Order: sequence, then C-alpha cells, then structure tokens
Amino acid sequence: MNTLGVFTLRACAGLLGCRTGTCVRSLRSCHGITVAQIDEEVAKLLELKAQLGGDDGKHQFVLKTAKGTRDYNPKQMAIRERVFNTIVSSFKRHGAETIDTPVFELKETLTGKYGEDSKLIYDLKDQGGELLSLRYDLTVPFARYLAMNKITNIKRYHIAKVYRRDNPAMTRGRYREFYQCDFDIAGQYDPMIPDAECLKIVHEILSELDLGEFRIKVNDRRILDGMFAVCGVPDDKFRTICSTVDKLDKMSWEDVKNEMVKEKGLSEEAADQIGEYVSMQGGMDLAERLLQDQKMSQSKQACAGLTDMKLLFSYLQLFQVTDKVVFDLSLARGLDYYTGIIYEAVLTQAGVVPAPVSSEAQNGAAEESVSVGSVAGGGRYDGLVGMFDPKGRKVPCVGVSIGIERVFSIMEQKAEASAEKVRTTEVQVMVASAQKNLLEERLKLTSELWNGGIKAEVMYKKNPKLLSQLQHCEDSGIPLVAILGEQELKDGVVKLRTVATREEVDVSRADLIEEIRKRTSEV
Amino acid sequence: MNTLGVFTLRACAGLLGCRTGTCVRSLRSCHGITVAQIDEEVAKLLELKAQLGGDDGKHQFVLKTAKGTRDYNPKQMAIRERVFNTIVSSFKRHGAETIDTPVFELKETLTGKYGEDSKLIYDLKDQGGELLSLRYDLTVPFARYLAMNKITNIKRYHIAKVYRRDNPAMTRGRYREFYQCDFDIAGQYDPMIPDAECLKIVHEILSELDLGEFRIKVNDRRILDGMFAVCGVPDDKFRTICSTVDKLDKMSWEDVKNEMVKEKGLSEEAADQIGEYVSMQGGMDLAERLLQDQKMSQSKQACAGLTDMKLLFSYLQLFQVTDKVVFDLSLARGLDYYTGIIYEAVLTQAGVVPAPVSSEAQNGAAEESVSVGSVAGGGRYDGLVGMFDPKGRKVPCVGVSIGIERVFSIMEQKAEASAEKVRTTEVQVMVASAQKNLLEERLKLTSELWNGGIKAEVMYKKNPKLLSQLQHCEDSGIPLVAILGEQELKDGVVKLRTVATREEVDVSRADLIEEIRKRTSEV
Repeated sequence: MNTLGVFTLRACAGLLGCRTGTCVRSLRSCHGITVAQIDEEVAKLLELKAQLGGDDGKHQFVLKTAKGTRDYNPKQMAIRERVFNTIVSSFKRHGAETIDTPVFELKETLTGKYGEDSKLIYDLKDQGGELLSLRYDLTVPFARYLAMNKITNIKRYHIAKVYRRDNPAMTRGRYREFYQCDFDIAGQYDPMIPDAECLKIVHEILSELDLGEFRIKVNDRRILDGMFAVCGVPDDKFRTICSTVDKLDKMSWEDVKNEMVKEKGLSEEAADQIGEYVSMQGGMDLAERLLQDQKMSQSKQACAGLTDMKLLFSYLQLFQVTDKVVFDLSLARGLDYYTGIIYEAVLTQAGVVPAPVSSEAQNGAAEESVSVGSVAGGGRYDGLVGMFDPKGRKVPCVGVSIGIERVFSIMEQKAEASAEKVRTTEVQVMVASAQKNLLEERLKLTSELWNGGIKAEVMYKKNPKLLSQLQHCEDSGIPLVAILGEQELKDGVVKLRTVATREEVDVSRADLIEEIRKRTSEV
Repeated sequence: MNTLGVFTLRACAGLLGCRTGTCVRSLRSCHGITVAQIDEEVAKLLELKAQLGGDDGKHQFVLKTAKGTRDYNPKQMAIRERVFNTIVSSFKRHGAETIDTPVFELKETLTGKYGEDSKLIYDLKDQGGELLSLRYDLTVPFARYLAMNKITNIKRYHIAKVYRRDNPAMTRGRYREFYQCDFDIAGQYDPMIPDAECLKIVHEILSELDLGEFRIKVNDRRILDGMFAVCGVPDDKFRTICSTVDKLDKMSWEDVKNEMVKEKGLSEEAADQIGEYVSMQGGMDLAERLLQDQKMSQSKQACAGLTDMKLLFSYLQLFQVTDKVVFDLSLARGLDYYTGIIYEAVLTQAGVVPAPVSSEAQNGAAEESVSVGSVAGGGRYDGLVGMFDPKGRKVPCVGVSIGIERVFSIMEQKAEASAEKVRTTEVQVMVASAQKNLLEERLKLTSELWNGGIKAEVMYKKNPKLLSQLQHCEDSGIPLVAILGEQELKDGVVKLRTVATREEVDVSRADLIEEIRKRTSEV
C-alpha cells in the first residue's frame, strides 16, 4: 500500500509538471486535476506495477530488531566472551555450580514479586494453554527452582538474558533484553559469612575487569527500617520513603527532602532527622558509633543490623577488601524482597561511564532507576523462597548480580579507543596457494590440519589470488599462512609464512602441525 | 479453587464415612446426599479455611515450569557445558565467528518463512508498541541480520534457545524451548566447497561426541524437484508430495504411497515412479548413474543437482568423510527455504535413542515431525536473505544445525548408566579445621588461595565438624583438604589431605598454592 501511495504521488506530480522535492506540497494545492484524470493515472500505474511483478510485500519489511534490543556482532561477541570468562572464572573459583531455567515462567510465578515494576513484565499472548511471562530477573526463577526441587543448600551462578518493557537508554547500556550474571548462596549458615563472600566476589570481578576505580556501598534493610522508625516515619510509609532515599545518588538532599515532605506527607522534623543519618558514611567504626547512638539504639531491628554490619566488616578485613567497601546509610535499593544486607558497586572514575548521546536516551534519563555508574548490586533475601513453598518453609539466600551490559559498554568503548585490534576468530593458519588448480591440494592439507586440531581456513574459490588470501589474513589477524605450490608438493614441504614479518620458511609436511602449534602458542 | 475442590470432596467423603482411596468414586455414586447438606458442609469448610488464615493465594501456586520447558540442574549443566565445548571447538577450528540476536523479533520478520509450521510460533502479548514473536529458529534471524547490516560474507556460529509451541515429547528430548547450534557460511563462492565443509563439521562433531554409529544422508532440492517433474507430479503439488516423501523414515512405502494417491490425489503411476527413485541410495556412483538415467536426465534441474552431488563427493573424499555419507533420494526435509543440497545425520546404533516413557510422550509420538535418531541437519538456502533485502539482493548460504537436545538426552543417559561421577564444580581444595574457633583463620587462608587463583571452598559455619567438612569433599568430588589447627598455625604449615587416599602431609604455607596447583593439574 505504501508503494502504491508513493507511485500515485509521483504520478500526480508528473502530471502537473512538478520535478522538485516539493511534489507533495504541490499536490496539496493541485485543484486543477479532475477525478477522472486521477483515475486514469492510477489505472496506468497499477498496470505498470503489475508488469513489474506486483506488490509481493517484500519491500515493506522494516529491517530492524525489536525496540530496546540489539544484535551482537562478532567483535562485540569477542568482548562479551572475554568478560564472561573473567566473571565465570571468579564464580567457579568460589565453588559455584550453575543452573538454567526457561526464558518464560508461568505468569503467576512472577506475580507479586516486583511491586510497581510488574508493569514492565513482558507477557506472552494467550494462544491457548498456560499464561506465560518472560522472566524479569534470575532471582525469582531461582527461588521457584529451589522451592520446586526442595533444595535447601546451593551455591550457584546463572548467566542469562532477562526482559523488561522499560524505557530503553541504549547508549547508556540499558536495554529491554539484557544479560544478568547472578551468583547466590542459599542455605542456613552462620551470619555474614556468605554475605562477605559475595562482596569479595564483587571486589575480585571488578578488579579483574579493570574498569577503573570503584566503591562498594553497603547498608542493611534492618538498619534502614530501624532508622525510619526512630525518625518517626509511620510504618506504612517505610517503602515509599525508602524509594525516595534511593534517589539520593542522583538528586540533591533538598529535592529528596521536598519529595518526602511535599509529595509523601512526611513531617519536616522526621525528614531532617533522616537527612542527618543518610549523610553518614564509614566502616566498622560507624556501625559501632550508631550502636551507641541514643535514637538508633532504641530500634531492635537497627541494632541487629548494626551488629551484623560490624561482623561483616571483620570478615571483609580478613578478605582484604575493606579499601573499597563503605557503610553508607543512604543506600536503599528498590526491590521489595531484600531482608538484610544490601550492596551496590559503583564506578567512581570520571570518563568511564557512558554518557547519553541520542535524544531517546535523554528522554529516558528521567526514568533512569539504576544509579549512574552502578555495575553490581545485591543483598540478602530470606523470605522469597518461602513465598513459593506450599508450607512457607524459608531458605535464607544472599546474592549478587553483575550489571554486565554496562560493563560491555565500557569495554567496547575501551576497545574503540585503544589501538588494540579485537580478533573475532582464533584461526591459526590459512592454507593458500599462489598457483592455479591447487584447490584439491589445499582442501586436503586443510583437512589434515583440522584433524590435527589446528584452527585453519581455506578460501572457497578454485583459484583465488595469493594477494587476496594474504589480505584476508591481515584483515582477520591470522598469524600464519601455509602456502602450497607445485614445487612444495614435489618436495613434500609447505612454505610457512609469518604474516607480520613476511618471513617464509619451508617446513616438512610431517612437522607442520607441530610447527604451527609451537608458533601460535606464543601468540 | 483447586484447594477448595479438594476440601469439598474430602468433606463429602467424610460425610459418607468413606475413608479409603476410592473417595471420588464413592462421591460419584452418593445420591443420598442433598444439596442442602452439601451447602452446609461447604459453609463449614469455608469457615475453617478463614480460621486457617484465609486464601492468600500463597498455596495456590502451581510450582512448575511452563509446559514443554525444563530447568537444567547443575549435573545437567555440567554435561551441557561439555557438549557445547566440543561443538564450539569444532566451529572455531573451522574459523567461525559468533553473533547473537534478540530472543524475539518483529512478528513480520518471521511471517511467511515457515509454511504450515507458522502456527507453532509464540507471539508476545500486544502491550502497546511493536508486535513481537519468539524466534522459531536461528536461520531467519541470521538472514535478517545479514540483510540489515548488508553483510555478504560471513562464517558464523550461533548457539541459542528457540521456541516452538509444539506437542512436547520431553523424554525423547523434544521441548518447546530448546537449544539450536547453528553453523552457516554466507557468501558467493565456488560450488560445493562450503557445503562440503558443513558435512565435514557434522562428521567431526558426531565423532568427537562419541554418540555411536551415525550416517549422514544427503540429497538436493533440485534433484527432488527434477524427480517430481519427470515422474509427472504437477508443479503445484511438489511441496505437498515432498512433505509426504519426508515421512519415509517413519512410515512404510505403502503408507506413503497411500497418502500420495488417496489423500493428495497423485496418479498411481507417478507414485510408483517416485517409489522407484526414493529407494535409491549410494554415493558418487549413484549420481553418475542418475545423470545417465533416461527420465532423470530430461530435467535440467536434476542434472544441475546431480553434477553438484558428484562434485560434493569428490570434496568429501578429500575430507575423508565418505564412509558416513550416503546420497539418499528419500531425504526431503520440510523447510521451504532450501534451494540446493540438504542433509541430515542420524544415529544408527540401537539403544542410544531415548524411547518414550510417559503417556504424554506417547500421545505426542504420532505428531513427531523430526525423524527418530536425527541429530543434525541443514542445507543450502540461497534465497532467504534476499527476502529481507529491499532490493532483493541474494546472499547464498549453506549451514548446519546440531540437534543438541537429543545429544543432551543421550549424554545424560550415558552418564546415568556409567559409574562415572559428574562433578558440578571445579573446586580444588576445601579449607577445613578439626578444632573450634578457627573460622577467622580458615577465612584468611581461603582468601589467600582465591587470590592465588585456586578454586577453594570453606564451610559457612563457625565450628563445623571435621567429618561434615570431609563428607562435603566426598559428595562433590573435591580432591584436596587443607586442614588448619593450632599446631599448624604455630608451625606455619597446613595439613594437606588427599581425599581419595586419606594421606596427609604438612606443606609450608608459602608453598601451598604451588603444591595444590601441582596436585590438581594431574586430575
């Protein structure tokens, strides 16, 4: 239909002798044309179209991926693979197993787990059968898995895509389809030991990824709730005040206070008291001081949280990670299911955080719910598994999620900025020939190399030019070329060329595999 | 509602004094009970329920994964990882890059690509915005990717999940969510070279996975179409007759003929001629013979296909894989988009193919559309990318898809059957203590090991029993235990215990990482 529309406009314009870019405007004012004339033109055009093969729908494709999603090209995949290897190595070093769950769950499994964010869940169309939704995170499917299989003890990681119908801000690394890398420890253990290990893992991964300076903020839901209570926040306002506090990393205290008092109806006095607490940052010393604090010490909950915070810091000292960890009373984190310690890692070095570029990203900025620079987060959620257990049996859990998309964005930027060339294949050698009619010999040698475990390529042409074979090596970073010619075949050798130095040496066919292996193991 | 239903039945049974497992049957015949009595019982039950805390939804969870999907537990994941490693190694040996595409595509991207099977596509609910569908395979997204990025040359693999609202037969390894492992070569090349490499890859992977004997059947769409033409099948019946021929691996010739003649209205004569051809199997010799065949040689298409088949076999000889490859005229393969060579690998050894067990699987068996034992398939599709290109520019492609779910099923069965224990973690050493109050020392040592790159675990208990620490090593196959005690701390050593032999030796703290590395590199 679009095609037809365009034809008609052009035809009409042609009729009027209009040949410029303002055809459409001209058309709008073409009162002189009669309906009969239009009909006639249309008939002509339709005839022309029929001759051209008709409207087969082919040209109406919108060639794009769904909004908020993207393809990964080979270069991006190479970077992604490297990042995943670093992260998985750390998870495995800490003894984690891995599981996988389906990309969709029964809709009811996700219901009531995400509070307001539930509106962002992708539902599948009801095509008969069960009502299904795409997973929103990996934590709820993990809890469902534990309850369903009656597992009370597991240390697992899970790397998979999750889905949120959010306002995408893709230049900041925020998508509707994105990876999560989760590590969780489930089980009834002595306090703060698994919690400390999670922080150790964040520290390890961020150090190894070499993303620049970072800080890990730590707080505890019980400390927050206790603080709200002693500051005089009514019980039913804990959650909403908490979500306002969560905005402190991107709003000034004045704006946060305004929202508490004017929008959420908190007394100014209570807000000011909160303001005093949430400006506090420190380490074990701060936890000790607050345990002595006259107001704070009135809350049992806060005291429990503060005592655990002290214990946590003592373990973090043993793990030698206290240099990066800060007890920060302004850290709130949105999700409802946290019950104890919460944490979030942020990059603090200027310049490494992708800035918004497109107008789409700018429009989305107001709804940004993760803090800028946040690359990992998590906490303790002791009640979630119990929500799935028919008898409500609890399985205490603590875990961490690495914000991998942001890491990808940063790594991509770094790769762009550096001169380093990202290889997208691991090919060690290209089997080539300078002379014609050697396709069969090339295929035979390539097959020998494959069978010997060598990563080898050969051009799919009968008689490729040597130059184009060498060019392909340059382009894709293949370090060696095995060149065959009549003479080499007669002598039972192969000319092995080092692409970088252009140096060539004859290697006996029997030694070729060993020689290639030796030369490429140094690379 | 279910809960209530059960209550009511039990109540009614109680009312009748029924206490056995035949309650329901009793209920059906309980004519003696009046409606008033039932109402009264129901009221009582509802009151009871209210006392119990009401219907909070918690107990109505159906704890399951969506129909046709499954979780992978750590043991299954360990097997899956091993299989993927084998396959990816082969793909990389052949110089493939990898890409990734989103799990859903615009609905129109999938439209018109899968013929009858389009009804199996999962659509997402229209929640405002674009209409989306879950990907049905990796080939169409690949073609969309090529057209969208104007790529005319690539050799890529893609391993990801695809979605089909099919009748699941899970015990046979057939699911609604399942992995595909695709390798494709796109580009304008000399005939049959990339095609031969695809078959070489199938041969390599199936050999390395060690699944038992296998055979790779090869045919060509042009040979099939030429055959239909010379046998007198009307043009508009090619596709439907082709899909009947495709059933020859699970139906007798008589039944296939019956379907052609009685259901699809083909003449008996034409059917018999087809019957003669489709019983033919061979190698290069068969292609040569058919090129001389009086009828077959009348079709230009068939001749083109047969000439290429000869060329293919000459390359397969160079690749030394002709022992497993059979030119089989009965191979048809369903998908519309194939334009040249097609192939399918089947396991031929008895006993390795998972048999249906559950009644669900038995019900589904009649609709089984992949042939039993099929573990890989593919072919040439030169027109698909052009369907996405606004100017219809073609990018010739050939590829292969490994039927990985069936491979998983077989590997799992093999693991079950063998005594071999599948490890789900790679932990090298457990840091333990026999005495109390050494948690901090254990954590400190564990952290040292992590920092040294050793995969280490420690129990999250203040004072775990030595026996339970050792038991954990037995259970999860951890080969070494590093035992700390007062004496060891004084001496600056660690007692390193080999779990299998129970042999213990003191190792100086400074040498520990090296010693662990040495001992576990042999494992």
